[in-house]
Amino acid sequence: MLDSFFTPQSIAVVGAADDPSKMRGKLLKIALNSGHKGPIYPVHPKGGIIQGKQGYTSLTEIPGGVELVLIATPGATVPGVIREAVAAGAKAAVILSSGVDMLELADAIGDSGLRYMGPNCEGYVSLDGAAATFAAVADTALSEERPALRPGRKVSIVSQSGGLGFALFGRGIKENLDFHAIVTTGNEGDLESLDFVDHLLDEGESGVIVMFIEGLKTPARFAEVAGKAADKGVPIVIMKVGRSEAGQRAAVSHTAHLTGADTAYDAMFERYGIIRVFDQEQMLSVAAALARFPHVPVKKVGVISTSGGAGAWAADLCGTAGLDVPVLSAPLQKDLSEWIPDFGSTANPVDVTANAVESGGGPLVSVLERLQQSEEVDAFIVNIGLHSPGRIQKLGERLGPVFANATKPILFTSHILPSDENMAALASLGGQGFHSYTACASALDAIGRYAAFQSKWKARPPVAPADAPKLRDLKPGVLDEADTRALIDAYAIPVPPTALASDRDSAARDAAAMGFPVVLKIQSPDISHKTEAGGVKLGVGAGEVEAAFDEIIANAKAYDPAARIEGVLIQKMMPKGHELVIGVIRDADFGPLVMLGSGGIYLEVLKDVVFAPPPISPEEAKQLILGLKTAPILAGVRGQKPADIDALAALVSRVAELARTETGIEQIDFNPVFVYPEGEGVVAVDALAVAVDPNGMAAGHGHH
Amino acid sequence: MLDSFFTPQSIAVVGAADDPSKMRGKLLKIALNSGHKGPIYPVHPKGGIIQGKQGYTSLTEIPGGVELVLIATPGATVPGVIREAVAAGAKAAVILSSGVDMLELADAIGDSGLRYMGPNCEGYVSLDGAAATFAAVADTALSEERPALRPGRKVSIVSQSGGLGFALFGRGIKENLDFHAIVTTGNEGDLESLDFVDHLLDEGESGVIVMFIEGLKTPARFAEVAGKAADKGVPIVIMKVGRSEAGQRAAVSHTAHLTGADTAYDAMFERYGIIRVFDQEQMLSVAAALARFPHVPVKKVGVISTSGGAGAWAADLCGTAGLDVPVLSAPLQKDLSEWIPDFGSTANPVDVTANAVESGGGPLVSVLERLQQSEEVDAFIVNIGLHSPGRIQKLGERLGPVFANATKPILFTSHILPSDENMAALASLGGQGFHSYTACASALDAIGRYAAFQSKWKARPPVAPADAPKLRDLKPGVLDEADTRALIDAYAIPVPPTALASDRDSAARDAAAMGFPVVLKIQSPDISHKTEAGGVKLGVGAGEVEAAFDEIIANAKAYDPAARIEGVLIQKMMPKGHELVIGVIRDADFGPLVMLGSGGIYLEVLKDVVFAPPPISPEEAKQLILGLKTAPILAGVRGQKPADIDALAALVSRVAELARTETGIEQIDFNPVFVYPEGEGVVAVDALAVAVDPNGMAAGHGHH
Repeated sequence: MLDSFFTPQSIAVVGAADDPSKMRGKLLKIALNSGHKGPIYPVHPKGGIIQGKQGYTSLTEIPGGVELVLIATPGATVPGVIREAVAAGAKAAVILSSGVDMLELADAIGDSGLRYMGPNCEGYVSLDGAAATFAAVADTALSEERPALRPGRKVSIVSQSGGLGFALFGRGIKENLDFHAIVTTGNEGDLESLDFVDHLLDEGESGVIVMFIEGLKTPARFAEVAGKAADKGVPIVIMKVGRSEAGQRAAVSHTAHLTGADTAYDAMFERYGIIRVFDQEQMLSVAAALARFPHVPVKKVGVISTSGGAGAWAADLCGTAGLDVPVLSAPLQKDLSEWIPDFGSTANPVDVTANAVESGGGPLVSVLERLQQSEEVDAFIVNIGLHSPGRIQKLGERLGPVFANATKPILFTSHILPSDENMAALASLGGQGFHSYTACASALDAIGRYAAFQSKWKARPPVAPADAPKLRDLKPGVLDEADTRALIDAYAIPVPPTALASDRDSAARDAAAMGFPVVLKIQSPDISHKTEAGGVKLGVGAGEVEAAFDEIIANAKAYDPAARIEGVLIQKMMPKGHELVIGVIRDADFGPLVMLGSGGIYLEVLKDVVFAPPPISPEEAKQLILGLKTAPILAGVRGQKPADIDALAALVSRVAELARTETGIEQIDFNPVFVYPEGEGVVAVDALAVAVDPNGMAAGHGHH
Repeated sequence: MLDSFFTPQSIAVVGAADDPSKMRGKLLKIALNSGHKGPIYPVHPKGGIIQGKQGYTSLTEIPGGVELVLIATPGATVPGVIREAVAAGAKAAVILSSGVDMLELADAIGDSGLRYMGPNCEGYVSLDGAAATFAAVADTALSEERPALRPGRKVSIVSQSGGLGFALFGRGIKENLDFHAIVTTGNEGDLESLDFVDHLLDEGESGVIVMFIEGLKTPARFAEVAGKAADKGVPIVIMKVGRSEAGQRAAVSHTAHLTGADTAYDAMFERYGIIRVFDQEQMLSVAAALARFPHVPVKKVGVISTSGGAGAWAADLCGTAGLDVPVLSAPLQKDLSEWIPDFGSTANPVDVTANAVESGGGPLVSVLERLQQSEEVDAFIVNIGLHSPGRIQKLGERLGPVFANATKPILFTSHILPSDENMAALASLGGQGFHSYTACASALDAIGRYAAFQSKWKARPPVAPADAPKLRDLKPGVLDEADTRALIDAYAIPVPPTALASDRDSAARDAAAMGFPVVLKIQSPDISHKTEAGGVKLGVGAGEVEAAFDEIIANAKAYDPAARIEGVLIQKMMPKGHELVIGVIRDADFGPLVMLGSGGIYLEVLKDVVFAPPPISPEEAKQLILGLKTAPILAGVRGQKPADIDALAALVSRVAELARTETGIEQIDFNPVFVYPEGEGVVAVDALAVAVDPNGMAAGHGHH
């Protein structure tokens, strides 16, 4: 469907001016320069020849009609133009104008099937197809001689903001990135970012897709599109604004209270291997690296430098990013010593000394070739002075094959301000220069994380369809004990042994069977305030059950002689284990999310919580558990036995299934959950569940 | 003393070549271009005219001698050259050569008093004095027409690495920073980084000093030099490599175990307001900002942008850096609305819309002027497109006065790749452009932190001289009970009530006075394994003391009939409070450091520890306590009473005094320390102290 945008038969530019410095003149000029093969029709009330093309006074005049219409006329005129476009058989429109009446626009489109981008967007450029924008950077880029693009290494940008999308394009050109398409979606009245990502994935020309978003128009579609990208192995890099806003939900449960504005986005990003970035340099560094080496597991980095201090610095930043810079083995160091003088270092960081470059680059290339063959490192940061004119050109003959044959990422950088010439020369040889060690480290970190994600993604168990909701219609608000109990039973949540006793003898028998001490609670649909009624007895030991039973019954009858008494609930008081919390919230954008947190006082003070969307396999649950700051405690510290992680993972997985299936549940907290030593299981001591209010007044709505 | 380097009467360049593209030719060329007013003598065995100057065949031939000698001849020749320099009356030498025999060098200098920089350095450039380097970037910088430097805004660099020091200089020139001096110290055979920092502080020309270090030659001097900088209000920005190395000490105490390779550096940096940075862009951004606005308390940031998305992004990164972007008050927004169209935003981020710049910049300047007068924001990030040629030049007439009158930092940035021309134009108007929002946010964060440090520094109590060591010579290794007790008494460390009872009645009386339960322990110089001897009784209650006393005495006599028995120690078993750890280590570089950590299992799992050097005033101790991740627990969560922070701070302060005074103590742990609710005090339940081994074999030596 979106082919009508990127490879249309014909294009009309409405209001096209002859002067290419004017906005609508530039729109035409860029379209003409785009490399689009079919006809391009300028449309202007005055007609005549416009930028060398025959102009038409109206869209409907164009013989044979037109497929794609570009509109940058004042907002008020847009519905009228769209009516003409529909009449001319157009299938697609790019509405760059702002101030468009959306109802009139919808009316103009009617049931024609015309799809549009915008309004209030800056359009798009496809370096392999059409262009529909007046962005200055696109004008410059398409006017210049373009080097041939290298297949399979191209970066595409999909941005809601036109200004930021094309700014990133301009910065990326400066960094010698190869681009396929830049798409800016503006107000997303019709087509949204995810539509274009989906289309780019289908095209198969983008090695990596970079998105800038303020929020998704249809978050519910995210899983499908991000899942397609994961299946195709195309990394998605996202810059999302709105992190600092504390738009938290009305907090009934702990889980909801601990959910920040971006929690759901982060959990979804984690699930689908999205690389989240935070500034433009990082966006470009990560995109450049992922476009070239999307699937190399990177953990061990070789740092090669002509300067000892610079190498140590780069190694430090790798360490901060969680990457290793391992000391090389003695045999490997011996091999390297062939090309490295004594005053250098073969250890890693490898100090090849200035001579390795100044001598013509032979030693540097030999070291790189040798290390490419070694299993001791997965990727390289090469720091040489990239200031001197002609430095890379001189190394080109030997460096080109190194890049061409590289199976491991090679990132060039320079402590001295690199020249544009050397950075471009690196790119033309198939390499890539980076401006800082921070950029190198975050690029390698992204490569490593994406490779790890891909192997996890490929190994994930097939997802069964969620069971149909099992529970009857729930009253909005906090669930009563019976409904909570039904939920717990349906998903086999381990809870303390419980029995309903109808007489003192069976109470004693039940208690003895589960072990002491126990809790006794009156069970009556007519007594909601059990404690007030004297209907609760804690810490009841062996031999005390019968008396406690009698006392509770007597208290209840005294409290409300008319109460229907169903019996007395006997529940085992559980010994303390590692204390955790498991919860579910229903995110307005993405639906249910499972939370796991450390328990007690530390939950809130340390914000030691992790979130993931269902389904969560037991294996995924274990990964989630490892994400807790206090995970080492579960693994066993100071000689303690490790906790029963298998049982905890199974419980998290079952709660995720509950979250996926029971669409009537808005929030649920299992708090505390006690985790016992390995082999001894886990128990959810208490549960608080809240049902969705179909009238939308329940807690948990709207962080929009 | 260092005036002989920066403003010498005369300079000799040894081995000076006529060809300025050769290393020693460049050394001469740069010296000649430096602006140095006095004579410069080329010295070369062949004599003759060198670069237009009369050459001398030897230093001793120069009539009237020479003050400063620059040496870049092969290492083996250096001692001979130094002998001649001494003979010629030189007071200073810059030894750029490597491979110098240091013993021969010392011999050549003898008692002449000659001081030198290097060897193996790249020398220095003073933009207001002499230059002694062959660094290409210095050559370029001094060959070009230089704009007049603005007083009081200059940046100096002191780097152990020549390559990195001059690389930073080159990048800084590109970023339009004003420099005073770049000093690279190489192997620091004589003068070290701190000497040059000290000199630069005395000169008073540097608004900020940026250091690159791998470690300090004389860490013990750091406090004096950093203290001088703090007194003068000159911020020091340090990049130090070596963070990722886990060079941990032999760990007897918890404190030592939790000390990383850089813990002491970080603690010293914190104490003296050093801004630690991690990459070159950050170094330059922070330096540029601090040079202009060293003492402005920055917390609330106004973000002004021509693009909504860019403004939101900048605001996000401010939030991440701990800065506020507050919504402006209604009256202030009303004022701003005079210059901002309806489709913009006056809230903050302030969206002035593209019109504010394209209309000639009047609205942008008016908004800036109005906000400079407001107390609602402390600093500004201004994001406009800095790509268009002439953009800043066109705003210049109105923007210049805004920068000149600014009392609050104004940081310009651009989502679109900024042009060099616009960045330079900003600088020439007295402003500064930054390449990313990250750079802006870290610059503002640094300004805010330095201002906060300065007000803390000025308010700090005067430091009394440390008391002389009070304890007798200690046996190396773990202290015995008597020495530990003496230490505790000397510094009034609160410990559980303790008494030595010599008979059963006084034991009972002592126990009753302190409250139950108590612990009883045999006290005998001949029984070291008390538990084995049956000499310990825990949890002894009222009425049980006499019997326990008798039993312990009997057990001890049975265990060793010859043992001298001094009595039975009665100690109160303390109720649990908030559990913390306080410790001291003696760092090989910086001396004693006090550690405060959260207690129990979380200490190691969360690495929840903070370090500071003594002395620590009670007020500083409170700041330290607030640095703990678990500090909110002490403040009281979930309705708990706040802990007795005053008592804890007093204890930390006393332990710091112990650390400063008792130079014979290598490590000490008070673990656990129980902190009780407000007004109820604090108690160190147990203490482990280790004495220094004068033979240097004790734990705690050498992370070098």
